[in-house]
Amino acid sequence: MKVTLAQQNFVIGDFQANVPAILNALNSSRTNKSDLVVFPELAISGYPPKDLLHFDAFIQQCESALQEIATHTEGLAVIIGLPVFNHKGKGKRLFNAAAVIQDKKVTDFVYKTLLPTYDIFDEYRYFEPNESFKLVDIKGKKVALSICEDIWYTNILKLYDEQPMAELSKLKPDIAINIAASPFSYVQHKERHEVLSYNAKTFNIPLVYVNQVGAQTDLIFDGGSAIYNEQGKCVYQAPWFSESFDTIDLHNLPSSVSQIHPSKAALQYQALVFGIKEYFQKLNFKQAIIGLSGGIDSALVAVLAAHALGKENVLCVLMPSQFSSDHSVSDAEQLAKNLGVEHLTIPIKEVFDSFMDELEVKFKGTAFGLAEENLQSRIRGNLLMSLSNKLGHILLNTSNKSELAVGYGTMYGDMAGGLSVIGDVYKTEVFELCRFINKEFSDVIPENIITKAPSAELRPDQKDTDSLPEYDVLDAILFQYIENNKSLNEIIQQGFSATLVQKTIKLVNQSEYKRHQTPPILRVSPRAFGPGRRLPIVGRY
Amino acid sequence: MKVTLAQQNFVIGDFQANVPAILNALNSSRTNKSDLVVFPELAISGYPPKDLLHFDAFIQQCESALQEIATHTEGLAVIIGLPVFNHKGKGKRLFNAAAVIQDKKVTDFVYKTLLPTYDIFDEYRYFEPNESFKLVDIKGKKVALSICEDIWYTNILKLYDEQPMAELSKLKPDIAINIAASPFSYVQHKERHEVLSYNAKTFNIPLVYVNQVGAQTDLIFDGGSAIYNEQGKCVYQAPWFSESFDTIDLHNLPSSVSQIHPSKAALQYQALVFGIKEYFQKLNFKQAIIGLSGGIDSALVAVLAAHALGKENVLCVLMPSQFSSDHSVSDAEQLAKNLGVEHLTIPIKEVFDSFMDELEVKFKGTAFGLAEENLQSRIRGNLLMSLSNKLGHILLNTSNKSELAVGYGTMYGDMAGGLSVIGDVYKTEVFELCRFINKEFSDVIPENIITKAPSAELRPDQKDTDSLPEYDVLDAILFQYIENNKSLNEIIQQGFSATLVQKTIKLVNQSEYKRHQTPPILRVSPRAFGPGRRLPIVGRY
Repeated sequence: MKVTLAQQNFVIGDFQANVPAILNALNSSRTNKSDLVVFPELAISGYPPKDLLHFDAFIQQCESALQEIATHTEGLAVIIGLPVFNHKGKGKRLFNAAAVIQDKKVTDFVYKTLLPTYDIFDEYRYFEPNESFKLVDIKGKKVALSICEDIWYTNILKLYDEQPMAELSKLKPDIAINIAASPFSYVQHKERHEVLSYNAKTFNIPLVYVNQVGAQTDLIFDGGSAIYNEQGKCVYQAPWFSESFDTIDLHNLPSSVSQIHPSKAALQYQALVFGIKEYFQKLNFKQAIIGLSGGIDSALVAVLAAHALGKENVLCVLMPSQFSSDHSVSDAEQLAKNLGVEHLTIPIKEVFDSFMDELEVKFKGTAFGLAEENLQSRIRGNLLMSLSNKLGHILLNTSNKSELAVGYGTMYGDMAGGLSVIGDVYKTEVFELCRFINKEFSDVIPENIITKAPSAELRPDQKDTDSLPEYDVLDAILFQYIENNKSLNEIIQQGFSATLVQKTIKLVNQSEYKRHQTPPILRVSPRAFGPGRRLPIVGRY
Repeated sequence: MKVTLAQQNFVIGDFQANVPAILNALNSSRTNKSDLVVFPELAISGYPPKDLLHFDAFIQQCESALQEIATHTEGLAVIIGLPVFNHKGKGKRLFNAAAVIQDKKVTDFVYKTLLPTYDIFDEYRYFEPNESFKLVDIKGKKVALSICEDIWYTNILKLYDEQPMAELSKLKPDIAINIAASPFSYVQHKERHEVLSYNAKTFNIPLVYVNQVGAQTDLIFDGGSAIYNEQGKCVYQAPWFSESFDTIDLHNLPSSVSQIHPSKAALQYQALVFGIKEYFQKLNFKQAIIGLSGGIDSALVAVLAAHALGKENVLCVLMPSQFSSDHSVSDAEQLAKNLGVEHLTIPIKEVFDSFMDELEVKFKGTAFGLAEENLQSRIRGNLLMSLSNKLGHILLNTSNKSELAVGYGTMYGDMAGGLSVIGDVYKTEVFELCRFINKEFSDVIPENIITKAPSAELRPDQKDTDSLPEYDVLDAILFQYIENNKSLNEIIQQGFSATLVQKTIKLVNQSEYKRHQTPPILRVSPRAFGPGRRLPIVGRY
């Protein structure tokens, strides 16, 4: 049996694009003499469709699209994901379904059993879980068909009490197929491999896994579809971060394939470049604008943007103030030159002075402080947004995860933008990424940008460490609090200074209101700020 | 049996405040010779605690607080809500529990069965549902104890297949008690009455209902605890929008009480004033700053803020430009005078010109357009935030729901602020609210502000209707799309112009990225922008 793993990239809700793309995939599969074409979870709608699922008309469009696709399946069996109405007369109004098409007819629906409702997932908001199990007959094979989370357990990872594959296994299937929309994080490659290998081996069955590819705002789906043999070995591996439509003969599989395990920095780099590219492409934008401070964060974003969009599509703006050091300007200029991107310089002093004139009525006699610091940052935000509005360039935000965590940023100033590129990358990871980039791309980032002490340059001789701990300590504490949900006392018990932990956690909690108004953040870690981490703004804890 | 309905206001996560407040309530209940004191759902933690529930230490603190409370219950039985660990060895790690304390010991836990996971609710993200039913013996009474959603059905409203009260009813209880954290919307009074009445009558049992009061960022809990007799009549009604600790003798109930049904505008007014007050009080802020344009939206917000915080705590800033009409300034001044609030005027022309000078490199030779319009709005945002930072006043946002829906606002400009006061109030409702206020408060809002044509005044002779339909038509379309999830075709079939519906829906969909960065919005309708409506930013639909 020849199976096509249609690792496709969908635009959420864009039936006029998704359906023809699916039909194209069917045509090329036919050319490759495929027997069965497998598409990802919720392929027809794109994943995650979120509250579009509340519209009856949206579900009807999905079901109509399925019928249209069915008419184009001559000679092929097809498995494809979509949301469908629940006609059982009880429970939530929808199922997350895998439809099976054979002989141009929709012959079966299999519904998702385990509905992830944690982290960024909200599936129980929409779907009724499946409660009964059956195999699907496809061209003489008995197929154990499941959807994403349904196989998401190993002997270590025990999220659920139910194991749909264990139920299906009792029915003696010949092969297992799982269709997925599983988003990237830097640990996901390894976890996913363990999950797939565990299932194939435990249930002693070849397992075909087809994942969505493409970024959907903040979520980056990395593809990496695969086939595992009944010994739990990977025998086919699709590429990451690109579409792929390989047709594989299940009767003629290699005994294993070599899997590449890139470094964390390499994975983050690929994901972020892909995430930027996708955001622009899917919104029909071409060009980005970035405020270049001479610091490491904006340098990294400029490189990622140039790699994602092409150097001709990136405009860097230097906006020095009286507090900017000479090296900030020259470092930023050098970077722009190395990258070959356009840059322009707009000093902010005149605008700053005109604001201060108007504010005199309330500012007179007060000391230079937070208001004056933030004002500079907001003038820069305003200049960038003005250029963005005039030129049609999208402003890329350059805040990192450490800053976002402790609120070290100005709302409507350096926290502005259409997309936060490195808001899920800790400062220490920013350094690692820059080192990785300089190694791969002949030192494109001037060394001085990487080695100098980080500074917001909003007052004389300012350094980040004036108000924050060293980043390696800060990030370690943040990781325990944010990724690991460790409490104050638990973190102190790990050996960190009590004062520092207390201060850090207080800053994180107090900054919730700032993070509420950030742009969407490209998610590359298992716990990004945004919909994967939901905390009260008003509270005391 | 004398029952105290402890309709209390909690700060999420603030055990040091919540526990003493609970102990105070116990003391006063004892003075009133109460037998049983009933607190709301998740009283100990505050509701909604959101991802604080992910911290083991948080749950442990809740459980410790319960033990501490138990030691202070001499002579009293107590029912109180808190999250507890699930020790059953299967399912999600927590239960949403009602603890029963008797003789200073925790004698029972009842777990929530129906876990709302829709709209603003995410309970299945955290909690395992209850699966078995029992009555609780309290001082000789068999009590059917349930939590909020567990009774949330009538013969019309059928969200769930299970009816916990039907199960409990089979066990022949003497009374039913429901503890709740049920947020306000302008339809909630009526719905809640129907639900309570239905349950009491259907199961032929007196029903004691205790709801949380207090606003938690965007969510406004309105209290309104009540007792219904077995005929489904309301026999006791606690106040709305304030704490209350009445002790009621269940053996000596009146045959009914008169329930007040305020108008929608009256309800919205009360909820918004309460929401502002709570936001400031719980965050330890006193003073608000508001940009006063001379238009109706900022006028309404100024009145609500003055009523919530006191006129001495509101600073209004007029920031006229060359495009501001004379009446805008005089109307705004008149309003400030009527309210008795401080106001100051900062013209934006000089700052605008200094920006234009610096932007010349890219703006030269281009026509005055969106960039120049937004620039004015962002200069105002920057002035307001500078004053906010300098003076410690919180900026109140004045965008209405219609504007937010179609993206008729400037990010980091008029969309800035710590709290969106009327972001869940359509423009037509803004007019109704102003009429209501002028009737109740001797025409505080100058008539001209209400009657003149709405305008952003960002270019010569601009009117909202230059780019938007009349608000009564726009709001009617928006209501069908946002509140009712009706599709393009369904709305056209209701008789609206196809072009208009198409344009409106497109604007709503395209503005998702703007709404992503708005301040939290006080929720007063059944479908507010924010966590109750989750849509993709990147998509095409």
